[in-house]
Amino acid sequence: MTSNGLLLILSGPSGTGKGTVVKSLLAGSPGIRLSVSATTRAPRPGEKDGKDYFFLAREKFQKMDKAGKMLESAEYCGNGYGTPLEPIEKWTSKGQDVILEIEVQGGAQVKKKRPDAVGIFILPPSLKELEQRLRSRGTESDEVIRGRLQAARKEISQAAYYDYVVINDTVESAAAQIRAIITAEKSSAGRNQELIERILKDD
Amino acid sequence: MTSNGLLLILSGPSGTGKGTVVKSLLAGSPGIRLSVSATTRAPRPGEKDGKDYFFLAREKFQKMDKAGKMLESAEYCGNGYGTPLEPIEKWTSKGQDVILEIEVQGGAQVKKKRPDAVGIFILPPSLKELEQRLRSRGTESDEVIRGRLQAARKEISQAAYYDYVVINDTVESAAAQIRAIITAEKSSAGRNQELIERILKDD
Repeated sequence: MTSNGLLLILSGPSGTGKGTVVKSLLAGSPGIRLSVSATTRAPRPGEKDGKDYFFLAREKFQKMDKAGKMLESAEYCGNGYGTPLEPIEKWTSKGQDVILEIEVQGGAQVKKKRPDAVGIFILPPSLKELEQRLRSRGTESDEVIRGRLQAARKEISQAAYYDYVVINDTVESAAAQIRAIITAEKSSAGRNQELIERILKDD
Repeated sequence: MTSNGLLLILSGPSGTGKGTVVKSLLAGSPGIRLSVSATTRAPRPGEKDGKDYFFLAREKFQKMDKAGKMLESAEYCGNGYGTPLEPIEKWTSKGQDVILEIEVQGGAQVKKKRPDAVGIFILPPSLKELEQRLRSRGTESDEVIRGRLQAARKEISQAAYYDYVVINDTVESAAAQIRAIITAEKSSAGRNQELIERILKDD
Protein backbone atom coordinates (compact mmCIF):
# COMPACT_ATOMS: atom_id res chain seq x y z
CA MET A 1 0.00 0.00 0.00
CA THR A 2 1.45 3.35 -1.02
CA SER A 3 2.60 5.58 1.82
CA ASN A 4 1.71 8.81 0.02
CA GLY A 5 -1.24 10.75 1.38
CA LEU A 6 -4.35 11.18 -0.74
CA LEU A 7 -6.06 14.37 -1.78
CA LEU A 8 -9.79 13.86 -1.19
CA ILE A 9 -12.42 16.10 -2.77
CA LEU A 10 -15.60 16.03 -0.68
CA SER A 11 -18.72 17.62 -2.12
CA GLY A 12 -22.44 17.38 -1.56
CA PRO A 13 -25.50 19.60 -1.27
CA SER A 14 -26.11 21.84 1.72
CA GLY A 15 -27.99 19.92 4.42
CA THR A 16 -26.44 16.56 3.58
CA GLY A 17 -24.30 16.67 6.69
CA LYS A 18 -20.87 16.80 4.99
CA GLY A 19 -19.45 18.81 7.88
CA THR A 20 -20.50 16.24 10.50
CA VAL A 21 -19.07 13.39 8.42
CA VAL A 22 -15.77 15.29 8.08
CA LYS A 23 -15.65 15.91 11.84
CA SER A 24 -16.15 12.20 12.48
CA LEU A 25 -13.39 11.35 10.01
CA LEU A 26 -10.94 13.82 11.55
CA ALA A 27 -11.74 12.70 15.10
CA GLY A 28 -11.03 9.05 14.39
CA SER A 29 -7.99 9.41 12.14
CA PRO A 30 -4.87 11.39 13.05
CA GLY A 31 -3.64 10.70 9.51
CA ILE A 32 -6.41 12.83 7.95
CA ARG A 33 -6.27 16.64 7.75
CA LEU A 34 -8.77 19.21 6.56
CA SER A 35 -7.55 21.74 4.01
CA VAL A 36 -7.98 25.37 5.07
CA SER A 37 -9.18 27.77 2.36
CA ALA A 38 -7.78 31.21 1.70
CA THR A 39 -10.07 34.23 1.42
CA THR A 40 -9.84 37.97 0.90
CA ARG A 41 -12.86 38.65 3.08
CA ALA A 42 -12.39 40.06 6.56
CA PRO A 43 -12.41 37.65 9.50
CA ARG A 44 -15.71 37.44 11.40
CA PRO A 45 -15.69 37.61 15.20
CA GLY A 46 -14.13 34.43 16.57
CA GLU A 47 -12.60 33.28 13.29
CA LYS A 48 -8.92 32.40 13.48
CA ASP A 49 -6.36 32.87 10.73
CA GLY A 50 -4.97 29.51 9.60
CA LYS A 51 -7.83 27.61 11.25
CA ASP A 52 -11.10 28.88 9.74
CA TYR A 53 -9.41 30.50 6.75
CA PHE A 54 -6.11 31.95 5.69
CA PHE A 55 -7.13 35.62 5.60
CA LEU A 56 -5.17 37.25 2.79
CA ALA A 57 -5.01 40.75 1.37
CA ARG A 58 -6.47 40.95 -2.14
CA GLU A 59 -3.04 41.64 -3.65
CA LYS A 60 -1.40 38.63 -2.03
CA PHE A 61 -4.34 36.38 -2.97
CA GLN A 62 -4.15 37.42 -6.62
CA LYS A 63 -0.39 37.04 -6.72
CA MET A 64 -0.62 33.49 -5.37
CA ASP A 65 -3.43 32.65 -7.76
CA LYS A 66 -1.53 33.95 -10.79
CA ALA A 67 1.61 32.09 -9.71
CA GLY A 68 -0.36 28.81 -9.73
CA LYS A 69 -0.23 28.52 -5.96
CA MET A 70 -3.98 27.94 -5.66
CA LEU A 71 -5.46 24.55 -6.58
CA GLU A 72 -8.73 26.33 -7.37
CA SER A 73 -10.19 29.76 -6.81
CA ALA A 74 -13.47 31.60 -7.22
CA GLU A 75 -15.08 34.97 -6.61
CA TYR A 76 -18.11 35.00 -4.33
CA CYS A 77 -19.98 38.12 -3.20
CA GLY A 78 -17.04 40.28 -4.16
CA ASN A 79 -14.46 38.24 -2.25
CA GLY A 80 -11.84 35.81 -3.46
CA TYR A 81 -11.79 32.23 -2.15
CA GLY A 82 -9.19 29.62 -2.97
CA THR A 83 -7.31 26.49 -1.94
CA PRO A 84 -3.60 27.05 -1.26
CA LEU A 85 -1.54 24.29 -2.85
CA GLU A 86 1.50 24.36 -0.58
CA PRO A 87 0.05 22.89 2.65
CA ILE A 88 -1.62 20.11 0.63
CA GLU A 89 1.66 19.14 -1.02
CA LYS A 90 3.49 19.27 2.29
CA TRP A 91 0.97 17.05 4.09
CA THR A 92 0.43 14.47 1.35
CA SER A 93 4.19 14.07 0.87
CA LYS A 94 4.35 13.23 4.59
CA GLY A 95 1.72 10.54 4.10
CA GLN A 96 -1.22 12.52 5.48
CA ASP A 97 -4.53 12.45 3.66
CA VAL A 98 -6.04 15.87 3.02
CA ILE A 99 -9.76 16.53 2.71
CA LEU A 100 -10.99 19.41 0.58
CA GLU A 101 -14.59 20.23 1.49
CA ILE A 102 -15.61 22.06 -1.63
CA GLU A 103 -18.54 22.73 -3.96
CA VAL A 104 -18.96 21.07 -7.31
CA GLN A 105 -17.34 23.72 -9.53
CA GLY A 106 -14.28 23.95 -7.28
CA GLY A 107 -14.09 20.16 -7.17
CA ALA A 108 -14.01 20.02 -10.96
CA GLN A 109 -11.15 22.57 -11.04
CA VAL A 110 -9.15 20.49 -8.55
CA LYS A 111 -9.76 17.23 -10.41
CA LYS A 112 -8.54 18.85 -13.62
CA LYS A 113 -5.25 19.96 -12.03
CA ARG A 114 -4.81 16.88 -9.88
CA PRO A 115 -6.33 13.85 -11.64
CA ASP A 116 -4.96 11.70 -8.82
CA ALA A 117 -7.35 13.40 -6.37
CA VAL A 118 -10.21 11.20 -5.18
CA GLY A 119 -13.65 12.72 -5.67
CA ILE A 120 -16.31 11.69 -3.16
CA PHE A 121 -19.87 12.99 -3.41
CA ILE A 122 -22.00 12.85 -0.26
CA LEU A 123 -25.64 12.09 -1.08
CA PRO A 124 -28.72 12.46 1.11
CA PRO A 125 -30.75 9.20 1.43
CA SER A 126 -33.46 10.99 -0.60
CA LEU A 127 -34.55 14.50 -1.51
CA LYS A 128 -37.50 14.11 0.90
CA GLU A 129 -35.05 13.35 3.69
CA LEU A 130 -32.91 16.34 2.67
CA GLU A 131 -35.98 18.58 2.79
CA GLN A 132 -36.82 17.30 6.27
CA ARG A 133 -33.27 17.95 7.45
CA LEU A 134 -33.37 21.50 6.06
CA ARG A 135 -36.81 22.14 7.63
CA SER A 136 -35.79 20.71 10.99
CA ARG A 137 -33.23 23.49 11.33
CA GLY A 138 -36.26 25.76 11.61
CA THR A 139 -34.29 28.78 10.52
CA GLU A 140 -35.20 29.15 6.87
CA SER A 141 -38.28 30.26 4.96
CA ASP A 142 -40.14 27.98 2.54
CA GLU A 143 -38.71 29.95 -0.33
CA VAL A 144 -35.12 29.53 0.86
CA ILE A 145 -35.69 25.79 1.37
CA ARG A 146 -37.19 25.45 -2.12
CA GLY A 147 -34.12 27.24 -3.50
CA ARG A 148 -31.77 24.94 -1.61
CA LEU A 149 -33.57 21.84 -2.86
CA GLN A 150 -33.33 23.10 -6.42
CA ALA A 151 -29.61 23.75 -5.93
CA ALA A 152 -29.25 20.26 -4.40
CA ARG A 153 -30.90 18.67 -7.44
CA LYS A 154 -28.48 20.48 -9.71
CA GLU A 155 -25.47 19.43 -7.63
CA ILE A 156 -26.59 15.79 -7.35
CA SER A 157 -26.85 15.65 -11.13
CA GLN A 158 -23.07 16.19 -11.11
CA ALA A 159 -22.41 13.33 -8.68
CA ALA A 160 -21.77 10.90 -11.54
CA TYR A 161 -18.57 12.84 -12.36
CA TYR A 162 -17.12 12.00 -8.96
CA ASP A 163 -15.21 8.78 -8.29
CA TYR A 164 -17.42 7.66 -5.45
CA VAL A 165 -20.83 8.39 -3.96
CA VAL A 166 -21.54 7.93 -0.27
CA ILE A 167 -25.02 8.14 1.21
CA ASN A 168 -25.05 9.94 4.53
CA ASP A 169 -27.57 7.66 6.19
CA THR A 170 -25.78 7.65 9.51
CA VAL A 171 -22.60 9.64 10.13
CA GLU A 172 -20.77 6.51 11.34
CA SER A 173 -21.56 4.44 8.25
CA ALA A 174 -20.69 7.31 5.90
CA ALA A 175 -17.37 7.88 7.68
CA ALA A 176 -16.60 4.13 7.63
CA GLN A 177 -17.36 4.04 3.92
CA ILE A 178 -14.95 6.93 3.29
CA ARG A 179 -12.25 5.19 5.33
CA ALA A 180 -12.74 2.09 3.17
CA ILE A 181 -12.41 4.25 0.05
CA ILE A 182 -9.12 5.67 1.36
CA THR A 183 -7.75 2.17 2.04
CA ALA A 184 -8.88 0.91 -1.37
CA GLU A 185 -7.43 3.90 -3.24
CA LYS A 186 -4.10 3.39 -1.49
CA SER A 187 -4.20 -0.22 -2.70
CA SER A 188 -4.88 0.70 -6.31
CA ALA A 189 -2.38 -0.75 -8.75
CA GLY A 190 -1.94 2.71 -10.31
CA ARG A 191 -0.65 4.16 -7.03
CA ASN A 192 1.63 1.18 -6.37
CA GLN A 193 3.76 0.85 -9.48
CA GLU A 194 6.88 1.66 -7.45
CA LEU A 195 6.01 -0.96 -4.86
CA ILE A 196 5.65 -3.62 -7.57
CA GLU A 197 8.99 -2.57 -9.08
CA ARG A 198 10.61 -2.69 -5.65
CA ILE A 199 9.40 -6.23 -4.99
CA LEU A 200 10.62 -7.34 -8.42
CA LYS A 201 14.04 -5.81 -7.73
CA ASP A 202 13.90 -7.49 -4.30
CA ASP A 203 15.11 -4.44 -2.38
CA MET B 1 -24.16 1.79 -2.35
CA THR B 2 -25.16 -0.62 -5.10
CA SER B 3 -26.78 -3.85 -3.93
CA ASN B 4 -25.33 -5.93 -6.79
CA GLY B 5 -22.66 -8.41 -5.89
CA LEU B 6 -19.14 -7.98 -7.24
CA LEU B 7 -17.07 -10.41 -9.25
CA LEU B 8 -13.59 -10.43 -7.71
CA ILE B 9 -10.57 -11.82 -9.54
CA LEU B 10 -7.93 -12.89 -7.04
CA SER B 11 -4.48 -13.80 -8.33
CA GLY B 12 -0.99 -14.04 -6.93
CA PRO B 13 2.05 -16.30 -7.07
CA SER B 14 2.13 -19.70 -5.41
CA GLY B 15 3.27 -19.38 -1.80
CA THR B 16 1.76 -15.92 -1.29
CA GLY B 17 -1.00 -17.35 0.87
CA LYS B 18 -3.96 -16.49 -1.38
CA GLY B 19 -5.86 -19.55 -0.14
CA THR B 20 -5.54 -18.55 3.53
CA VAL B 21 -6.64 -14.99 2.76
CA VAL B 22 -9.67 -16.32 0.87
CA LYS B 23 -10.57 -18.61 3.79
CA SER B 24 -10.41 -15.66 6.18
CA LEU B 25 -12.62 -13.60 3.86
CA LEU B 26 -15.21 -16.37 3.51
CA ALA B 27 -15.25 -17.10 7.25
CA GLY B 28 -16.00 -13.51 8.19
CA SER B 29 -18.46 -12.63 5.42
CA PRO B 30 -21.58 -14.63 4.62
CA GLY B 31 -22.07 -12.30 1.63
CA ILE B 32 -18.92 -13.58 -0.11
CA ARG B 33 -18.78 -16.85 -2.07
CA LEU B 34 -15.97 -18.71 -3.76
CA SER B 35 -16.47 -19.70 -7.38
CA VAL B 36 -16.10 -23.43 -8.05
CA SER B 37 -14.22 -24.36 -11.23
CA ALA B 38 -15.26 -27.03 -13.69
CA THR B 39 -12.80 -29.69 -14.84
CA THR B 40 -12.72 -32.74 -17.07
CA ARG B 41 -10.21 -34.52 -14.86
CA ALA B 42 -11.38 -37.37 -12.63
CA PRO B 43 -12.11 -36.59 -8.97
CA ARG B 44 -9.32 -37.48 -6.55
CA PRO B 45 -10.15 -39.39 -3.37
CA GLY B 46 -12.15 -37.14 -1.06
CA GLU B 47 -12.99 -34.50 -3.67
CA LYS B 48 -16.66 -33.62 -3.90
CA ASP B 49 -18.53 -32.60 -7.04
CA GLY B 50 -19.81 -29.04 -6.74
CA LYS B 51 -17.49 -28.27 -3.83
CA ASP B 52 -13.91 -28.87 -5.00
CA TYR B 53 -14.81 -28.84 -8.68
CA PHE B 54 -17.71 -29.44 -10.97
CA PHE B 55 -16.52 -32.70 -12.54
CA LEU B 56 -17.71 -32.72 -16.12
CA ALA B 57 -17.39 -35.16 -19.01
CA ARG B 58 -15.18 -33.80 -21.78
CA GLU B 59 -18.17 -33.53 -24.15
CA LYS B 60 -20.29 -31.50 -21.73
CA PHE B 61 -17.32 -29.26 -20.86
CA GLN B 62 -16.65 -28.47 -24.51
CA LYS B 63 -20.33 -27.89 -25.24
CA MET B 64 -20.58 -25.37 -22.37
CA ASP B 65 -17.37 -23.68 -23.43
CA LYS B 66 -18.50 -23.32 -27.05
CA ALA B 67 -21.90 -22.02 -25.95
CA GLY B 68 -20.14 -19.20 -24.03
CA LYS B 69 -21.10 -20.68 -20.66
CA MET B 70 -17.54 -20.49 -19.33
CA LEU B 71 -16.07 -17.17 -18.22
CA GLU B 72 -12.62 -18.53 -19.02
CA SER B 73 -11.14 -21.91 -19.80
CA ALA B 74 -7.75 -23.55 -20.30
CA GLU B 75 -6.14 -26.90 -20.99
CA TYR B 76 -3.68 -28.15 -18.40
CA CYS B 77 -1.94 -31.56 -18.46
CA GLY B 78 -4.50 -32.87 -20.93
CA ASN B 79 -7.53 -31.79 -18.89
CA GLY B 80 -9.94 -28.92 -19.38
CA TYR B 81 -10.46 -26.37 -16.60
CA GLY B 82 -12.95 -23.54 -16.68
CA THR B 83 -15.17 -21.13 -14.75
CA PRO B 84 -18.91 -21.74 -15.21
CA LEU B 85 -20.73 -18.46 -15.75
CA GLU B 86 -24.18 -19.39 -14.48
CA PRO B 87 -23.53 -19.66 -10.72
CA ILE B 88 -21.62 -16.37 -10.81
CA GLU B 89 -24.51 -14.56 -12.47
CA LYS B 90 -27.01 -16.11 -10.08
CA TRP B 91 -25.06 -15.13 -6.97
CA THR B 92 -24.08 -11.61 -8.02
CA SER B 93 -27.67 -10.83 -9.05
CA LYS B 94 -28.67 -11.79 -5.50
CA GLY B 95 -26.13 -9.34 -4.09
CA GLN B 96 -23.46 -11.89 -3.20
CA ASP B 97 -19.84 -11.15 -4.01
CA VAL B 98 -18.05 -13.95 -5.82
CA ILE B 99 -14.31 -14.60 -5.60
CA LEU B 100 -12.50 -16.23 -8.50
CA GLU B 101 -9.15 -17.57 -7.33
CA ILE B 102 -7.38 -17.79 -10.64
CA GLU B 103 -3.99 -17.46 -12.32
CA VAL B 104 -2.95 -14.45 -14.33
CA GLN B 105 -3.91 -15.68 -17.82
CA GLY B 106 -7.35 -16.78 -16.64
CA GLY B 107 -7.79 -13.47 -14.83
CA ALA B 108 -7.04 -11.59 -18.05
CA GLN B 109 -9.68 -13.66 -19.92
CA VAL B 110 -12.28 -12.86 -17.25
CA LYS B 111 -11.47 -9.14 -17.20
CA LYS B 112 -11.89 -9.02 -20.97
CA LYS B 113 -15.35 -10.57 -20.83
CA ARG B 114 -16.43 -8.81 -17.66
CA PRO B 115 -14.71 -5.40 -17.42
CA ASP B 116 -16.78 -4.72 -14.29
CA ALA B 117 -14.89 -7.50 -12.47
CA VAL B 118 -12.47 -6.25 -9.81
CA GLY B 119 -8.93 -7.56 -10.18
CA ILE B 120 -6.92 -7.95 -6.99
CA PHE B 121 -3.33 -9.18 -7.03
CA ILE B 122 -1.92 -10.63 -3.82
CA LEU B 123 1.74 -9.77 -3.38
CA PRO B 124 4.30 -11.27 -1.00
CA PRO B 125 6.03 -8.64 1.20
CA SER B 126 9.20 -9.43 -0.79
CA LEU B 127 10.67 -12.17 -2.96
CA LYS B 128 12.99 -13.10 -0.08
CA GLU B 129 9.97 -13.59 2.15
CA LEU B 130 8.26 -15.65 -0.58
CA GLU B 131 11.34 -17.83 -0.86
CA GLN B 132 11.34 -18.37 2.90
CA ARG B 133 7.66 -19.32 2.84
CA LEU B 134 8.27 -21.80 0.03
CA ARG B 135 11.31 -23.29 1.80
CA SER B 136 9.51 -23.54 5.15
CA ARG B 137 7.08 -26.01 3.60
CA GLY B 138 10.11 -28.30 3.43
CA THR B 139 8.57 -30.35 0.65
CA GLU B 140 10.28 -29.03 -2.44
CA SER B 141 13.76 -29.29 -3.92
CA ASP B 142 15.96 -26.26 -4.55
CA GLU B 143 15.28 -26.60 -8.24
CA VAL B 144 11.51 -26.57 -7.80
CA ILE B 145 11.76 -23.53 -5.50
CA ARG B 146 13.95 -21.69 -8.01
CA GLY B 147 11.35 -22.48 -10.68
CA ARG B 148 8.52 -21.19 -8.49
CA LEU B 149 10.40 -17.97 -7.74
CA GLN B 150 10.99 -17.41 -11.43
CA ALA B 151 7.28 -18.02 -12.11
CA ALA B 152 6.41 -15.63 -9.25
CA ARG B 153 8.59 -12.89 -10.77
CA LYS B 154 6.81 -13.32 -14.08
CA GLU B 155 3.39 -13.19 -12.46
CA ILE B 156 4.22 -10.17 -10.29
CA SER B 157 5.28 -8.29 -13.40
CA GLN B 158 1.61 -8.59 -14.46
CA ALA B 159 0.29 -7.15 -11.18
CA ALA B 160 0.14 -3.65 -12.65
CA TYR B 161 -2.68 -4.81 -14.93
CA TYR B 162 -4.88 -5.56 -11.95
CA ASP B 163 -7.06 -2.93 -10.29
CA TYR B 164 -5.57 -3.39 -6.84
CA VAL B 165 -2.53 -4.89 -5.17
CA VAL B 166 -2.65 -6.24 -1.63
CA ILE B 167 0.44 -7.30 0.28
CA ASN B 168 -0.15 -10.44 2.31
CA ASP B 169 1.82 -9.32 5.33
CA THR B 170 -0.64 -10.77 7.80
CA VAL B 171 -3.75 -12.65 6.75
CA GLU B 172 -5.98 -10.35 8.83
CA SER B 173 -4.66 -7.12 7.32
CA ALA B 174 -4.85 -8.52 3.78
CA ALA B 175 -8.45 -9.67 4.32
CA ALA B 176 -9.38 -6.30 5.86
CA GLN B 177 -7.85 -4.53 2.88
CA ILE B 178 -9.90 -6.66 0.48
CA ARG B 179 -13.07 -5.94 2.47
CA ALA B 180 -12.30 -2.21 2.15
CA ILE B 181 -11.83 -2.65 -1.61
CA ILE B 182 -15.24 -4.34 -1.84
CA THR B 183 -16.91 -1.49 0.07
CA ALA B 184 -15.15 1.15 -2.04
CA GLU B 185 -16.00 -0.54 -5.34
CA LYS B 186 -19.65 -0.73 -4.32
CA SER B 187 -19.49 3.02 -3.65
CA SER B 188 -18.00 3.84 -7.04
CA ALA B 189 -20.00 6.39 -9.01
CA GLY B 190 -19.91 4.08 -12.04
CA ARG B 191 -21.78 1.35 -10.17
CA ASN B 192 -24.30 3.79 -8.70
CA GLN B 193 -25.74 5.66 -11.67
CA GLU B 194 -29.17 4.16 -10.98
CA LEU B 195 -29.01 5.24 -7.35
CA ILE B 196 -28.23 8.82 -8.37
CA GLU B 197 -31.12 8.78 -10.86
CA ARG B 198 -33.44 7.38 -8.22
CA ILE B 199 -32.57 10.14 -5.75
CA LEU B 200 -33.09 12.78 -8.44
CA LYS B 201 -36.50 11.29 -9.27
CA ASP B 202 -37.17 11.18 -5.51
CA ASP B 203 -38.64 7.66 -5.53
